[in-house]
Amino acid sequence: MGQFRFLTSGESHGKGLTALIEGLPSGLRLTEDDIAHDLARRQGGYGRGGRMKIEKDRAEITSGVRHGLTLGSPIALWITNRDWVNWTEKMAVEPVDVDIERVTRLRPGHADLPGAIKYGFDDVRNVLERASARETAARVAVAGVAKRLLGEFGVSFQSHTLAIGGVRSNIGEEVDWEAVETDRVRCGDPIASEAMVAAIDAAKSEGDTLGGQVEVRVSGIPLGLGSYVQWDRKLDGRIAQAICSINAFKGVGLGLGFDSTEQRGSKTHDVILPADQWGARPWRHGTNNHGGIEGGISTGEDIIVRAAVKPIPTLAHPLPSVDLDTGEEVLAHYERSDVCVVPAAGVVAEAMVAIVLADAWLEKFGGDNISEMRTSVESHLQALGPRARSD
Amino acid sequence: MGQFRFLTSGESHGKGLTALIEGLPSGLRLTEDDIAHDLARRQGGYGRGGRMKIEKDRAEITSGVRHGLTLGSPIALWITNRDWVNWTEKMAVEPVDVDIERVTRLRPGHADLPGAIKYGFDDVRNVLERASARETAARVAVAGVAKRLLGEFGVSFQSHTLAIGGVRSNIGEEVDWEAVETDRVRCGDPIASEAMVAAIDAAKSEGDTLGGQVEVRVSGIPLGLGSYVQWDRKLDGRIAQAICSINAFKGVGLGLGFDSTEQRGSKTHDVILPADQWGARPWRHGTNNHGGIEGGISTGEDIIVRAAVKPIPTLAHPLPSVDLDTGEEVLAHYERSDVCVVPAAGVVAEAMVAIVLADAWLEKFGGDNISEMRTSVESHLQALGPRARSD
Amino acid sequence: MGQFRFLTSGESHGKGLTALIEGLPSGLRLTEDDIAHDLARRQGGYGRGGRMKIEKDRAEITSGVRHGLTLGSPIALWITNRDWVNWTEKMAVEPVDVDIERVTRLRPGHADLPGAIKYGFDDVRNVLERASARETAARVAVAGVAKRLLGEFGVSFQSHTLAIGGVRSNIGEEVDWEAVETDRVRCGDPIASEAMVAAIDAAKSEGDTLGGQVEVRVSGIPLGLGSYVQWDRKLDGRIAQAICSINAFKGVGLGLGFDSTEQRGSKTHDVILPADQWGARPWRHGTNNHGGIEGGISTGEDIIVRAAVKPIPTLAHPLPSVDLDTGEEVLAHYERSDVCVVPAAGVVAEAMVAIVLADAWLEKFGGDNISEMRTSVESHLQALGPRARSD
Amino acid sequence: MGQFRFLTSGESHGKGLTALIEGLPSGLRLTEDDIAHDLARRQGGYGRGGRMKIEKDRAEITSGVRHGLTLGSPIALWITNRDWVNWTEKMAVEPVDVDIERVTRLRPGHADLPGAIKYGFDDVRNVLERASARETAARVAVAGVAKRLLGEFGVSFQSHTLAIGGVRSNIGEEVDWEAVETDRVRCGDPIASEAMVAAIDAAKSEGDTLGGQVEVRVSGIPLGLGSYVQWDRKLDGRIAQAICSINAFKGVGLGLGFDSTEQRGSKTHDVILPADQWGARPWRHGTNNHGGIEGGISTGEDIIVRAAVKPIPTLAHPLPSVDLDTGEEVLAHYERSDVCVVPAAGVVAEAMVAIVLADAWLEKFGGDNISEMRTSVESHLQALGPRARSD
Repeated sequence: MGQFRFLTSGESHGKGLTALIEGLPSGLRLTEDDIAHDLARRQGGYGRGGRMKIEKDRAEITSGVRHGLTLGSPIALWITNRDWVNWTEKMAVEPVDVDIERVTRLRPGHADLPGAIKYGFDDVRNVLERASARETAARVAVAGVAKRLLGEFGVSFQSHTLAIGGVRSNIGEEVDWEAVETDRVRCGDPIASEAMVAAIDAAKSEGDTLGGQVEVRVSGIPLGLGSYVQWDRKLDGRIAQAICSINAFKGVGLGLGFDSTEQRGSKTHDVILPADQWGARPWRHGTNNHGGIEGGISTGEDIIVRAAVKPIPTLAHPLPSVDLDTGEEVLAHYERSDVCVVPAAGVVAEAMVAIVLADAWLEKFGGDNISEMRTSVESHLQALGPRARSD
Repeated sequence: MGQFRFLTSGESHGKGLTALIEGLPSGLRLTEDDIAHDLARRQGGYGRGGRMKIEKDRAEITSGVRHGLTLGSPIALWITNRDWVNWTEKMAVEPVDVDIERVTRLRPGHADLPGAIKYGFDDVRNVLERASARETAARVAVAGVAKRLLGEFGVSFQSHTLAIGGVRSNIGEEVDWEAVETDRVRCGDPIASEAMVAAIDAAKSEGDTLGGQVEVRVSGIPLGLGSYVQWDRKLDGRIAQAICSINAFKGVGLGLGFDSTEQRGSKTHDVILPADQWGARPWRHGTNNHGGIEGGISTGEDIIVRAAVKPIPTLAHPLPSVDLDTGEEVLAHYERSDVCVVPAAGVVAEAMVAIVLADAWLEKFGGDNISEMRTSVESHLQALGPRARSD
Repeated sequence: MGQFRFLTSGESHGKGLTALIEGLPSGLRLTEDDIAHDLARRQGGYGRGGRMKIEKDRAEITSGVRHGLTLGSPIALWITNRDWVNWTEKMAVEPVDVDIERVTRLRPGHADLPGAIKYGFDDVRNVLERASARETAARVAVAGVAKRLLGEFGVSFQSHTLAIGGVRSNIGEEVDWEAVETDRVRCGDPIASEAMVAAIDAAKSEGDTLGGQVEVRVSGIPLGLGSYVQWDRKLDGRIAQAICSINAFKGVGLGLGFDSTEQRGSKTHDVILPADQWGARPWRHGTNNHGGIEGGISTGEDIIVRAAVKPIPTLAHPLPSVDLDTGEEVLAHYERSDVCVVPAAGVVAEAMVAIVLADAWLEKFGGDNISEMRTSVESHLQALGPRARSD
Repeated sequence: MGQFRFLTSGESHGKGLTALIEGLPSGLRLTEDDIAHDLARRQGGYGRGGRMKIEKDRAEITSGVRHGLTLGSPIALWITNRDWVNWTEKMAVEPVDVDIERVTRLRPGHADLPGAIKYGFDDVRNVLERASARETAARVAVAGVAKRLLGEFGVSFQSHTLAIGGVRSNIGEEVDWEAVETDRVRCGDPIASEAMVAAIDAAKSEGDTLGGQVEVRVSGIPLGLGSYVQWDRKLDGRIAQAICSINAFKGVGLGLGFDSTEQRGSKTHDVILPADQWGARPWRHGTNNHGGIEGGISTGEDIIVRAAVKPIPTLAHPLPSVDLDTGEEVLAHYERSDVCVVPAAGVVAEAMVAIVLADAWLEKFGGDNISEMRTSVESHLQALGPRARSD
């Protein structure tokens, strides 16, 4: 509901990306290194193009933090575009005297066409510079702050590749996260990983691209975030928006998602366990098919989100397209690009889930400083458990 | 972005549901009959329980409309709960002197557990009354207003059942919408429809429930709604939130959604046709795998949304659960319910898509009265087409 | 920041007014009587016209409350317009067959002109029905809920008349609130009150109207609501918006407001007292010229707000004006009206301040149920005091 | 309503200030020079302290503009704090090894006390760095963009000093704006200006400070911005919030503001002129006592806003105060400061009014690019005038 407000800005080949975050409590430990880790994870993955070698992103904190602690005031992040030096004329803020070659060949599968028409451009570069996935670096940086907040309370985030180009990971509920992080395609199933890499190689050799599926898992979120009282407060809806707002994401499922539609109710639902089977945490469920959210509220089980990533549409063997000026057939514009972004997409999906959960966390626990927030969290955790216990 | 602001309220067995809408232009024709149609569609479908016979919903317009035209001022809608007469004590607003039996048996798959804990209730009725899908009647009424606005500009909405309990509709792109509307399960494939009904009967006889998939299609949305410039303005993300905010919805896909992840880029993307193949509308695409949205902006093709509906969790043969007071095992509470809500779910999904599109429409076209809005829409439509044409 | 979300709707002579509130914790005691008190206060005051005798407003709670306690779900309020029976054709929602006389004479000082042009109306009634101060009844009802919440924590609201038609109340800081509530013009200075009544009588006899000034005082708001970190979180700005959004209010001041501009800094500022002079509450100030807010944050002193109310523009001896159709000179339209609304305006100003403070309260203290909120409030109050105490 | 979204960040002695703006159409001419002008105006004025000589602010556009035209994507602005070089340790983002002297003496009239308590600080510097009026430089930069947008449509902004330390400007409706801009205290009355300077000198010599009043006038806003339909859409309320959110502002009035409360209705209201007296613009009024807003909507007359600026509370002869650690009496902390900020305050008030009007402008006229917006504006202007004309 907007407790964790943020905006990003920046063009892909402009000076850099800016992000501005508002709503954090004061007193949270935060350094640039906290943010750097996920920025690096985002830049990895087999199948990436040349740009990833140019940009080694690092977000500079330019406000809102002093001596390693948040101030409660807005946090500004700045990520320099290292490639900018080669684009100073093409992307100059001020008018330039030279003729700049326009991009008019429309790439299918991109914002090129609707963006150019909507904003009245005669140069598609004005669209692609902002619609580019480069912008997700700013989101990942923002999420680094969100994760730092939630990490303070024991919440942790993971993601892995479920499928690439039709090759599926064949692992059960237990994922070896260390293996995922070192795997070239961020897949926890070594055999599937090999096949995914082979599929990427094959697609690359034919100038083609591949999509896939990723899964995000979040552990440590207590029962009680989100609400059913109004449509826009439902946690699942908010996560769905966040995921589908990422470039190339075309679908999202909570828990089993679409797979939950084929089973009967008696097989699908996550039964609540009786108190004698709870262990350390009250109100455990026997399964987690619904991904830790019921009625728009977190249940205390892991939050599990699956997402569909389409093959990126910038192909080395360009698709047929048309020219913005003439409407005549041309080949689509090709700018240095990737074959498969699914491994990195998992990191971005994690980021957006983290931002939504931080927002819901601030909404639930309030607190202007980390100490007040801690009191509020602990008080909530103590109140869990069956009523008889507290009576 | 909040141009079409609305809030709903009301408990399932309270006096009634209220919805309040803000942001419409003045001068739009609107009567209660415009809203009644979808309320009736929402109440149909094979596999519904007894309540649908009790409630024949009709929304009363109590403000914002005069002599059949909107005033630009907020519109209030009131839907009486006909069942309320039987619940005056149990659901009284004021304190009552009699003992009201509490609900303490937690139903899995519902908001019962997280809702009761979050809000500190000793009576689960306080949760289920608001978390109930009854609330979607208010959303459908709100969407009746949204559809009236968009209908003024030739936008039309359809939905159909893609699958129930694993039985899939086997139709192509062309759907016979009249057949859908008269079909018991709102499926356009008569053979699949038979099998779906049989599956519902089988589930019912075993006290079980079924989920499925629905598809919404919207035609007439011009190129240019939504934007890529900020994450929360992307049209696909906003649709995804709206869909996943509906009770029992666990997933959403734009266009092919998850199915788009298995094909290569060269097969998935919707190629833009050259001008000589356009016909009446400029910038046609050869296919519509991405569901009419690229880069978060509508492309002018039909908006297509798929959604996953889980089996409803209130089973006649109740699932095992626990008691809120004691944490001990009990059978879940059972209140009169349905076996399969997928047919009706399509109507609710349509509603939420309509609300999002009305919001994006207001954002794009502005206008305080319908005449100003019409000027703005027509000016936009004229500006479409390749640049050479307008030069 | 939108924690306490609310919308109102309803035309002055329509069926009634609806208000919908979202964001309250569960478990708060609330009945219709809690809301009735201020609705009655709003309808009093010397100098009101005939309508106040027709309408004895009472808000019906139609959702969000069960057995006298809030549910955490949205609260809907309904206020019937008793006058509606005389307006069923003129204000019918559905089209009517009879000719309805249009209002085309524009009243200066009202929304008549800009409203009719903006919304494209040929009948000014479409404007005046919503722009009427009748809408403030819905706000006062909403504020009844806000006050109930804050009252639970010892916050109390008062208002009184500072001036009417140039006659000023001559009391110091101490106001006899009981006297105010029984005074005809809600003025605590009996001599000024007499003169105000005389001024109203004189204006009335000449078909004229009077404005004035009111003051709202809120006690019990602890240090810490609002913030300086972003412009839209400043408590003073939020109060100023709320006040100036009320019909006929043309100015607002915090504490001394405009009077603070004539003194030097050394005389104006509220010195913080040393601990040995604090008494029951820490961080007391010696004076309260700034009205309990510094840097956009409440200081713990009383919140004091002054506001300017213009003379209402509907005069019995109508002002010259023009006709909407022709632009030719006519006398302004006159509909039954008041001579002076300043006494009632104080109650509405109180209401808007209460809504802003409830919003800031929810933002600061969070909590899904009243028990969680209480923990959060108490924890905050304990943390006040100089650091040495808690070390 | 959030069409023109913006956030600012930055500490007074940190690296710099960042502002991020979202919602502008594409194709608007914009360069850094457009923003520089008001930044310079903000830094002038007799009575400022030493810092104004250190900082010669210039905002760098780091995104959202290409070759002198806006892209429709978010605009980021960066203002370097030139003083930062002297504060690298004291204001370091990362932890430092040296001991940093804490500020614990609380300045009355500032956010020091409530800020330190709210955010749980033991060092008041953490408050004053963000609560400082330095932040208004970022707002003025943002407003430079807002003014560029509105300037494209002929809207212009002015402000002048009405009073300083009780010395009042004695000019009528006609202000010589050139004289104001070159006057040391931005006062259009040369005799009053002399007296104001003398008052500042006198206050300075005694270590004291002065407040005053400023007036903002905006010409060229057409009839129709804002609305009466919901409290938070009223233009006057939104302006009031914006003004009272500025540091040191304690009151605001629309048009005559508080002065309108002493006259009778027949003398106060702005009569609408008949068509034969209109001249170039339809629906002229005979006077403009209400400052160009009726019923929350702009009327087409100049928008006039008066505001009250308190004397700044940082005195060279510090006020008595207490220590944050001990609660014991001390003298308030003194950091290099100004004697009177009223002249500069007018520029900041202009800025906030410009931002609100740009927001309302976007809401009313929409348009994704400047050409669409122009069509929308022109269509609206043509539709003005009495109905008979357009029939």
